[in-house]
Amino acid sequence: MIRLGILVASDKGYKGERTDESGKLIMELFSRSEYEIVEYIILPDEREIISSNLCRQADHLDIDLILTSGGTGFSPRDVTPEATLDVIQRQAPGISEAIRQKSLEITPLAMLSRGVSGIRNQTLIINLPGSPKAVRECIEVIAPVLPHAIDILKGQTGECARK
Amino acid sequence: MIRLGILVASDKGYKGERTDESGKLIMELFSRSEYEIVEYIILPDEREIISSNLCRQADHLDIDLILTSGGTGFSPRDVTPEATLDVIQRQAPGISEAIRQKSLEITPLAMLSRGVSGIRNQTLIINLPGSPKAVRECIEVIAPVLPHAIDILKGQTGECARK
Amino acid sequence: MIRLGILVASDKGYKGERTDESGKLIMELFSRSEYEIVEYIILPDEREIISSNLCRQADHLDIDLILTSGGTGFSPRDVTPEATLDVIQRQAPGISEAIRQKSLEITPLAMLSRGVSGIRNQTLIINLPGSPKAVRECIEVIAPVLPHAIDILKGQTGECARK
Repeated sequence: MIRLGILVASDKGYKGERTDESGKLIMELFSRSEYEIVEYIILPDEREIISSNLCRQADHLDIDLILTSGGTGFSPRDVTPEATLDVIQRQAPGISEAIRQKSLEITPLAMLSRGVSGIRNQTLIINLPGSPKAVRECIEVIAPVLPHAIDILKGQTGECARK
Repeated sequence: MIRLGILVASDKGYKGERTDESGKLIMELFSRSEYEIVEYIILPDEREIISSNLCRQADHLDIDLILTSGGTGFSPRDVTPEATLDVIQRQAPGISEAIRQKSLEITPLAMLSRGVSGIRNQTLIINLPGSPKAVRECIEVIAPVLPHAIDILKGQTGECARK
Repeated sequence: MIRLGILVASDKGYKGERTDESGKLIMELFSRSEYEIVEYIILPDEREIISSNLCRQADHLDIDLILTSGGTGFSPRDVTPEATLDVIQRQAPGISEAIRQKSLEITPLAMLSRGVSGIRNQTLIINLPGSPKAVRECIEVIAPVLPHAIDILKGQTGECARK
C-alpha cells in the first residue's frame, strides 16, 4: 500500500476563485488498490507554506509519495520547485527529465516546466504541472515505475535490477 | 517588445584576438520586430565579471532575456554556467535539457555542453554554446517558446495553458 | 593516455558478500591503449568515505576520469550522487542526461537513476549505475566523447568544435 499525498499550489484555488481540477484528477488516476490517498490540500503559491506542508506530509503523515501540482512555471508566484528543493535531501533528476522529455513530444512549451523530483527520508516528492491535461500526460510517464521506486525507498526490496 | 541582452564569454574575443561570430549571429537571428537588442558585450571568461554583468543587465538595464554564448564547455576557463548559477534565483532546467536533447541528435559532443537556464527577478538567462553552428541550432529549439516565457515572467499573461 | 579511476560503491561488495561485476566490467571495457587504469576500489555506501576517495583519486592520484558504479538508486543507503556533488566544482549535467535518455529507450526504470557528472579541477567524475547490464549501456553512450572531454579539461586542445 502506497500512502499518497496530493499538494496543489494555486493562489486562485486556495482562495476559492477557481475549482481545482488537477488535484482531483490525480486522486482519480490513483484510486487504485495499491494507493491510499492520505491527504489532498490546496495551498497558496508561497514557498514557506509549501515547503512546511511537504515536510508535514513526509515527516508526520508518513506519506510515501507526494505529488504536487502547479507552481512550476515562469510566473513570479511560481515557487513549487524552490519549496521542494528546500526540503529534499537527495535529488532524483531523472524523473523530471523523463516527464519533460515525453512532454516535449507533445508541445515545445514543456521545456518551460521547472518541476523537480527528490527524496526526503523515505518520501518521494514529484512536481507535476498545473494543467489537468499535462498532469495526465506526466502521470502516464511516471506511473509504471512508482511502485518499484517506493519499494526501494522503503528498503522493502533488497535489489534493483538496473539501478 | 522583448528587451534582449547578449553576453559573449570569450577570452580571445575580449582581447580582440578573435572576431566574435556567435554574438553577432544571435543579433542577426533576433533582429525581428518583437525584440530590441539593448546590449551586446564581450567579456573574458571570469566568473565574477560574467556574474556581475548578468546582474547589471538584469537589474539595471531592465533586460527581459539574456542569451550568453561561450564558456559552457570543459576548458578550465569555462565558467559561464557557474556565473549564471551565482545570480539566478529560480532554475529553468527544461530549457537547457531541451537544447541538449535536440543537439544530441546532431552530435554526441552535445552532452559536453554544461549550459544552464534560470530566472533572476523578471529576467530569463539562457546559456548557449560558443560555436556559431551550435548557437543557431539551439536558438531554433528555444525561439518558439521565448515570447510566451517572457510574457509569463513579466506577469503579463494570467494563465499558461500547460504549466 | 587517460588515467582512469574506478570506484564501486557497494556495501555487499565491500564486505565481500558479493562479487563485484560492474567494476570489473568497466576495467574490461576500458582495457584499451588510450586508457591506464590507475585504481579500482570497492567502498561501502557511505557519503564521507566515497567523497574523500573521490578527492584522493582526483587530487593525489592525478586521475583524469573517475567512473563510479553503484549507489545511484533510491535505497536509503544510495548516496553516490550526493558524495559526488560534495566534491565537484563544475557540474556537467549533459552527460547524465544523455545516459538516462538513452537508457529510457531500454527501460522506464532508467528515470530512477540519480547519477550526476561533474568536474573537480582537471578530473571528470561520472556516476554509472550498479548493474553490469546498465553499466555497459551507459559506457556505450559516453565512450565516444570521453577522450575529447579529457583533452579539453586538461587544456590540451585549444578549441572545441561545438561547445
